[in-house]
Amino acid sequence: MKHIDYSAVDITGGFWRRRQELSRESTVNAVYDRFSETGRFAALNCDWKEGEPFQPHVYWDSDVAKWLEGALYTWSKFPEEELKVKIDQIVDTFLANQTPEGYFNSHFQTQEQENRFKIMNDHELYCAGHWMEAAVAHYRVTGETRFLDALGRYADYIAKRFVEDKDTGFEVPGHEEIELALLKMYDCTGDKKYLDLSLHFLNLRGVHPRDLIEGRGWAKAHYAQNHLPVRKQTEAKGHAVRAVYLYTAMADAAEKTGDEELKAACEALFRDITEKKMFITGSIGSSAQGEAFTVPYDLFNLVAYSETCASIGLIFFAQRMLKMTADSRYADVIERALYNSILASTSLDGKAFYYENPQEIVPYLHTRDNGGSAIRWPKMQRSEVFSCSCCPPNIVRLIPALGDYICSVEGDTVYLHQYAHCRVDLGDGRTLIMETKYPSRGRITVTLRGGSARLAFRVPGWCTECKYETDKGYTYFDVEDGQTVSVDFPMKVHFYEARPEALFNCGRCAVQRGPILFCAEGHDNGANLRDLCISVRSRWKLGIHPELGVPTLTGKATRRVFEDDRVLYRQNDETRCATPVTLIPYYAMANRSESEMLLWFQWH
Amino acid sequence: MKHIDYSAVDITGGFWRRRQELSRESTVNAVYDRFSETGRFAALNCDWKEGEPFQPHVYWDSDVAKWLEGALYTWSKFPEEELKVKIDQIVDTFLANQTPEGYFNSHFQTQEQENRFKIMNDHELYCAGHWMEAAVAHYRVTGETRFLDALGRYADYIAKRFVEDKDTGFEVPGHEEIELALLKMYDCTGDKKYLDLSLHFLNLRGVHPRDLIEGRGWAKAHYAQNHLPVRKQTEAKGHAVRAVYLYTAMADAAEKTGDEELKAACEALFRDITEKKMFITGSIGSSAQGEAFTVPYDLFNLVAYSETCASIGLIFFAQRMLKMTADSRYADVIERALYNSILASTSLDGKAFYYENPQEIVPYLHTRDNGGSAIRWPKMQRSEVFSCSCCPPNIVRLIPALGDYICSVEGDTVYLHQYAHCRVDLGDGRTLIMETKYPSRGRITVTLRGGSARLAFRVPGWCTECKYETDKGYTYFDVEDGQTVSVDFPMKVHFYEARPEALFNCGRCAVQRGPILFCAEGHDNGANLRDLCISVRSRWKLGIHPELGVPTLTGKATRRVFEDDRVLYRQNDETRCATPVTLIPYYAMANRSESEMLLWFQWH
Repeated sequence: MKHIDYSAVDITGGFWRRRQELSRESTVNAVYDRFSETGRFAALNCDWKEGEPFQPHVYWDSDVAKWLEGALYTWSKFPEEELKVKIDQIVDTFLANQTPEGYFNSHFQTQEQENRFKIMNDHELYCAGHWMEAAVAHYRVTGETRFLDALGRYADYIAKRFVEDKDTGFEVPGHEEIELALLKMYDCTGDKKYLDLSLHFLNLRGVHPRDLIEGRGWAKAHYAQNHLPVRKQTEAKGHAVRAVYLYTAMADAAEKTGDEELKAACEALFRDITEKKMFITGSIGSSAQGEAFTVPYDLFNLVAYSETCASIGLIFFAQRMLKMTADSRYADVIERALYNSILASTSLDGKAFYYENPQEIVPYLHTRDNGGSAIRWPKMQRSEVFSCSCCPPNIVRLIPALGDYICSVEGDTVYLHQYAHCRVDLGDGRTLIMETKYPSRGRITVTLRGGSARLAFRVPGWCTECKYETDKGYTYFDVEDGQTVSVDFPMKVHFYEARPEALFNCGRCAVQRGPILFCAEGHDNGANLRDLCISVRSRWKLGIHPELGVPTLTGKATRRVFEDDRVLYRQNDETRCATPVTLIPYYAMANRSESEMLLWFQWH
Repeated sequence: MKHIDYSAVDITGGFWRRRQELSRESTVNAVYDRFSETGRFAALNCDWKEGEPFQPHVYWDSDVAKWLEGALYTWSKFPEEELKVKIDQIVDTFLANQTPEGYFNSHFQTQEQENRFKIMNDHELYCAGHWMEAAVAHYRVTGETRFLDALGRYADYIAKRFVEDKDTGFEVPGHEEIELALLKMYDCTGDKKYLDLSLHFLNLRGVHPRDLIEGRGWAKAHYAQNHLPVRKQTEAKGHAVRAVYLYTAMADAAEKTGDEELKAACEALFRDITEKKMFITGSIGSSAQGEAFTVPYDLFNLVAYSETCASIGLIFFAQRMLKMTADSRYADVIERALYNSILASTSLDGKAFYYENPQEIVPYLHTRDNGGSAIRWPKMQRSEVFSCSCCPPNIVRLIPALGDYICSVEGDTVYLHQYAHCRVDLGDGRTLIMETKYPSRGRITVTLRGGSARLAFRVPGWCTECKYETDKGYTYFDVEDGQTVSVDFPMKVHFYEARPEALFNCGRCAVQRGPILFCAEGHDNGANLRDLCISVRSRWKLGIHPELGVPTLTGKATRRVFEDDRVLYRQNDETRCATPVTLIPYYAMANRSESEMLLWFQWH
């Protein structure tokens, strides 16, 4: 199956167009400015000296590279000169400071020349991978080869050190990423050396299990998925972002090489994540301890870590799996994460970000401890910058490239995985025009021009009322040149329950309309949201939030009344008073002052 | 109101007699043996040298003193020679090693001679207080004065240093305890100097607020209740054991001196604890961070700290308040803590103890983190010894002295606060005989001999079905010499809910029969207890647990069925399957292997 990528897809209106415009107008500049203020671009000059401010950190280059990649996607759709100047400046600075061998790292070149490729956890290969992804984007967007070639030299240098000379301090990257980036280099250039180097790292991982950092309990071998050979891995373990970046590369390699054993491992890992370790929002990585996966069904909303980058990596992984299997389950997971965890990670003004994404907020608990660090509660508000700032530039590169997720072609069949108001150049003379107000409305109208095709529409997993016949979750229509076909997925309000092992959700349900989860905030519903008991049979009305401008769902609920504030416990009393409840999309939470937020409700 | 103490009360049968026998046969010896093995008794010789094992810790003396106090109460009821030998040995060793000034501390005399009374957090006055409590018990049980006199000399030395010379490193104890102990010395000797010294410490507390340990976030002034003068304190703050020991002394002092301002502070503090910060089991101190009180309504079952000593201190506090006010609310709290948190802290064989008492157990969560110390979960099983072992000897002294809590006399009225099968010498020629199977049955029969009286029976707060007229929670009967009167409190199963602010209990109820809370364990009910939804209208049948020999309640419940283990989330489905549920008393939890335990159930 051939994915149609962002370059061939123009999102021309609707929900995602607004998000892409927000990204262009606000996010890409907001992140640039924060990075600029914190010296991340200046660091590329590799002239930082001891005692100066803004000491380049081992992972700073990756922040810049991801921003650069996102800026390139943005510029490809909205070619503004000001952005191009910034792009060129970064590329020029990289090229000017790359070493003769091809190496580049603003931390090591200023602070640890002698430690190049010596310390497993020091993110050099991770940064190199992000530079490669940016270089591929640079070549595809600008047509210039200078940056891509420079990263080719870097890859050659890495191959020399890790494969030929074997004089490095470790065998496989401490933070996976370069594996998937090398596969992109291979896709872009067709040069098999990149595939070989990626496979070298993939095949060596876990062969000689080694703790990532000795003496740190959380940084055992499994923390960097280095506990078992990749084909033997069936449970998602360790640092969630590292994990899904690795699995993405594994899936991509399996598809490219036809490696059935690797594919089977990927399928098992994907199932383990999505059937046992994924919040309903599409967030993964439950624990702040190591930013990591934990045990099955540990979906502890109140202390969820659920890093933004991990959800983005899950999308990458699902995308590779989808390409291999054309099974809508993968596209369903992409949809879940996009409309919920990913959107929620950014403020409605596009300028502030969650690194860890709350699944529930109870402000008073955040003050329960008497100093010290007993329980780490997720942040109640988004920040404009983080010291470890991987997530904001990951958003910067995801949103303008959303076209990547919409469509693929396999023989005569054109798959439609995600729905957006867009025009797609199928690359063979055929053009596909999709018109929709999704996710506000469920109607999707597609017109094909320049040839015939079999159109495969994904029937979303949440859509249990529609009558379409499906195969692997897709429904098929044969269309001629110029023909228009429509599908309609009823946008009903659905109520979801989690399995009993997910103990924090027992007795509770989540509310979803189409792909969008709704939550309650204290601002709209008063205090003690956990005491609300919503009526799943009441008529839920769609509206617009007067302050936030996002959709609302209003329905009926009950809550208890404890008139005497001296009563902590009382004998059960079934009287409850009726109360209206107003829900907003989860993605719109925390855009006012600190407040309670709840996704899982008691229901009757 | 004059409390009738343990010495005048013989518990001759029934529930508490069995617990007292278990304490005599098992607990007192088990704790002695563990203390012996860990060098705590040998430490009293004050001859430990650097490099030897069993280095005396600053709080070790208090462990021994509490054990001694408990052993004395035990010996007074069960005078066995073997126990007396151990008692004498401790007293003799103390006397042989007390310094000429009257000072005694096995840590400071071996390791920090120069730091005597210099370090606020080093527990010297706390240990001294416990020695005083033991000395009072020793005098009252044996009639000998030598130990009491020795502690009198210690008190004089403390007064010289803290009141006259003022050459100490701090003004008030870092861990309160000596304040209440000095009031016991006053009660025992009638010597006002003890009252004065206690009031000195009470009145100075919080006058010059000072962090207990500088630079430690959790050890601010409020940690040791040193943030405000005691009469200005209205919110329970800081280390829970320190707090309730202080409040106990405050209440006792208020009663002795008629200080209305102090009494009002005590009332406010008691309300704050019991109306906002008390688990339904009678446990207090929600957070492991500083073993401390937190914010109102933070009753986070899964991570509850709820130290045993804090519940014991709450009983002491309630007892002093009861003496001042004859209000059954205080006796209700004593009953709640005794039958639930206190009993649960000890294993059914009397040999193992909880320091922190779980309010819910979900074993899989205890393995969620990847090493490190992200969330501190309560222990799933009791231990036979702790490095900080304050709780076991506190149980050793509480159980044999349970007679302290049963009865008081005020003028013509004899109050019956707690119910036990016992004989009480009222000290004025009158004897009261109470016959009951409480808490199995609710019938209590009392016969008075040697005079007439007005009998005031506490109508327990849980007893909402009985028809007795009450005043401040007591119902009154005038009885003549030789007359018998009976009351009967229907032992129904009640279901309790917590107020909405206690968010962890929203939508859930606790099950109580008489004063005893019932819980479910995985052993009897399978996995995923939080998914059980109990029927409050089903007939709950009382039985006996075949393995544990404790009462059971069996009733009806429902649970969900998720047949396909690949489904993490599904659209709501109201079908539930019926399942029986077997509950055991909370006090009997965790007496088998590790298992889920739940107190708060979904209900319908």
